[in-house]
Amino acid sequence: MTLKSWLSSANGDSDFPIQNLPYGVFRDDKGARMGVAIGDRILDVGRVDHGLAPALFAQPSWNAVMAAGPAIWAALRSRLTELLSDEVHRAAVEPHLVPMAGTTLLMPFTVAEYTDFYAGKNHAVNVGTMFRGAENALPPNWLSIPIGYNGRASSVVVSGTDVVRPWGQLKGPNEELPRFAPSRRFDLELELGAIVGQPSEGMVSVADADQMIFGYVLLNDWSARDIQAWEYQPLGPFQAKATATTISPWIVTRAALEPFRVSTPQRERPLLAYLREPGPMLYDIALEVALAPEGKPESVIARTNAAELYYSAAQQLAHHTTSGCRMRVGDLLGSGTISGVDKTSRGSLLELSWGGKEPLTLETGETRSFLEDGDLLTLRGVAMGDGYRIGFGDCAGRVLPAIDLPEWAKD
Amino acid sequence: MTLKSWLSSANGDSDFPIQNLPYGVFRDDKGARMGVAIGDRILDVGRVDHGLAPALFAQPSWNAVMAAGPAIWAALRSRLTELLSDEVHRAAVEPHLVPMAGTTLLMPFTVAEYTDFYAGKNHAVNVGTMFRGAENALPPNWLSIPIGYNGRASSVVVSGTDVVRPWGQLKGPNEELPRFAPSRRFDLELELGAIVGQPSEGMVSVADADQMIFGYVLLNDWSARDIQAWEYQPLGPFQAKATATTISPWIVTRAALEPFRVSTPQRERPLLAYLREPGPMLYDIALEVALAPEGKPESVIARTNAAELYYSAAQQLAHHTTSGCRMRVGDLLGSGTISGVDKTSRGSLLELSWGGKEPLTLETGETRSFLEDGDLLTLRGVAMGDGYRIGFGDCAGRVLPAIDLPEWAKD
Repeated sequence: MTLKSWLSSANGDSDFPIQNLPYGVFRDDKGARMGVAIGDRILDVGRVDHGLAPALFAQPSWNAVMAAGPAIWAALRSRLTELLSDEVHRAAVEPHLVPMAGTTLLMPFTVAEYTDFYAGKNHAVNVGTMFRGAENALPPNWLSIPIGYNGRASSVVVSGTDVVRPWGQLKGPNEELPRFAPSRRFDLELELGAIVGQPSEGMVSVADADQMIFGYVLLNDWSARDIQAWEYQPLGPFQAKATATTISPWIVTRAALEPFRVSTPQRERPLLAYLREPGPMLYDIALEVALAPEGKPESVIARTNAAELYYSAAQQLAHHTTSGCRMRVGDLLGSGTISGVDKTSRGSLLELSWGGKEPLTLETGETRSFLEDGDLLTLRGVAMGDGYRIGFGDCAGRVLPAIDLPEWAKD
Repeated sequence: MTLKSWLSSANGDSDFPIQNLPYGVFRDDKGARMGVAIGDRILDVGRVDHGLAPALFAQPSWNAVMAAGPAIWAALRSRLTELLSDEVHRAAVEPHLVPMAGTTLLMPFTVAEYTDFYAGKNHAVNVGTMFRGAENALPPNWLSIPIGYNGRASSVVVSGTDVVRPWGQLKGPNEELPRFAPSRRFDLELELGAIVGQPSEGMVSVADADQMIFGYVLLNDWSARDIQAWEYQPLGPFQAKATATTISPWIVTRAALEPFRVSTPQRERPLLAYLREPGPMLYDIALEVALAPEGKPESVIARTNAAELYYSAAQQLAHHTTSGCRMRVGDLLGSGTISGVDKTSRGSLLELSWGGKEPLTLETGETRSFLEDGDLLTLRGVAMGDGYRIGFGDCAGRVLPAIDLPEWAKD
């Protein structure tokens, strides 16, 4: 029988049943602190008898718990499950349940460093086809390396943060010199973010890398395609990806996702030993992207699944350590854009509108090639269990107009 | 008349005269703390009457002083100059001078994020010529953008830290598939590192960017050319640059370098307004690279100057903010490899040995195409003033053999 909480709002079709117990940080009139989502409430976890050192809950961030290691992660989850399912604890715990509706959700952890990968094969093929033609769609290294680049940790913001359209150098194919202008091809990227909960020195196996991962969030890697096109050779994306990276507010733990493990697809080229997986390391998580023009209802513009990835976060993390690169508590790894095979399952407007050539028609009748000012973009994710669902909470951000250019930047 | 210290070892040909006063962190038997180099001593700055809040000196790191802002930077430098030049303070200050010889120098600051640029034109032309031919040597964006990529902050280590040769995926031009093997083309890159001392939100002008820079260090961006060749398309360098990035131990302040400002070279293509400099923003700093095979004397293998850069750190920082990217206290910006025009002034073995085709002969008679195990690599820098010299302290690291491959990584 499926385990239930004594809190009725946690049962039924809640995104936050007792099987989820995701970790976040919330603020109300008593300040910012660590919380656990349960039904329509947030458990003020530092105030209950969690059985762990109080120092782990002293800061509004999950970094200290992450640093404490997997045994503590397991002990906390086990204790929370007990506190929220056994009626005997109800009287002691209930006073520390805060209605979610009256709170503001903050960044759940401090991002140490942020790396963004490129592990969605359909996405890589789509983008490659547009930029290099179908013959050369996949870069030669793609089937051997989970390729990625270092992103900017300071760009990571929590869901609900507005995103200001960036300025940048743009150069059209027929222009001789670049102009400084607001991006006109501003886009989203639907990704899963893996949070590294343990540090490493030296090379780490895929199995150990998997155990280092504390949990997952949804991640929108906002991307200025026109800035990227001019800047990215030969050193990779830089300012095109530095405006903002939005994450969903709740860290869904690896433990909560265990029942949803699925294997990466059949390898099209054998992997080197250090990248081979000892078991299934992707997750069956249904994903969707919704776009709402300002003041209008939203349209779901894409539906796909995290199982579409070709490389797992564990493989990416193992690869990340090969050179001796030290990994740290709070490192965030973006999966790369997740796209399915068919046209309605693509995780970016670049793919959905095929580079702007086939604008998308929203349910409101408006069309979109790329994001317009005022657009509210929302990513959602859910893993469907046996009698429960594991939700991530919305990963949302609204596009605000570019700033007025300061005098000194005017040509 | 040139100002002198009452400490005689600070005068004459010391790298650390009263005009320098660089900031570091040292450890002796009393623990790790903040220090200022003067002659052959380190001033235990937290113990003297510096006139500032004690909290600024509570941690073994200069981040708190940086965060305090330019007025505090100026006040501290002024006070230190007074304390170390006026005989009246000698009795109070002298007990807090620690002989440098008995100390270990640690990381002078906590690196928030690390960005590496590519602003050496001779280097870019040399590398481009080797990889793409003389006709396409400079990427099309190079004369318009100070291009760069985000590096890995966790890779940054202080001078004296050993550097272990990395493993990685290597694929020769005639090989069909990559192998997992230790890098055989492991290299140095001679760079200057700029340390961002103030945060930003939104776009920053070149003039303001210059004022945000706290100081400079020498920087060796260790690079595995063979890993890079296979991994870097299309997302840029990743594991090739993640093994280690060595910096010199003393932060030479922007204030100390003021007398050495020189202009960037004549623009070959007009810059967009946001990148134009209001005054000279490079520095005349003589640089050299020395290589000592294990147990052998060193050979100076290159001599060049920081004035060879095409873009200043202020221009790079201004560009970094264009997309709205937030900059933080402790961000480190690598200049890119600094090479002069002639063959003896190139800042990497890739250029010095022309991709390994023209091995370099050391003074000991040995040859080098790339770095060998046991090699000790040392960068040095000095700005020559009127009656004094501003030194950076050695930026050194020894190459250790690659680790033995764990069983799970064996193919």
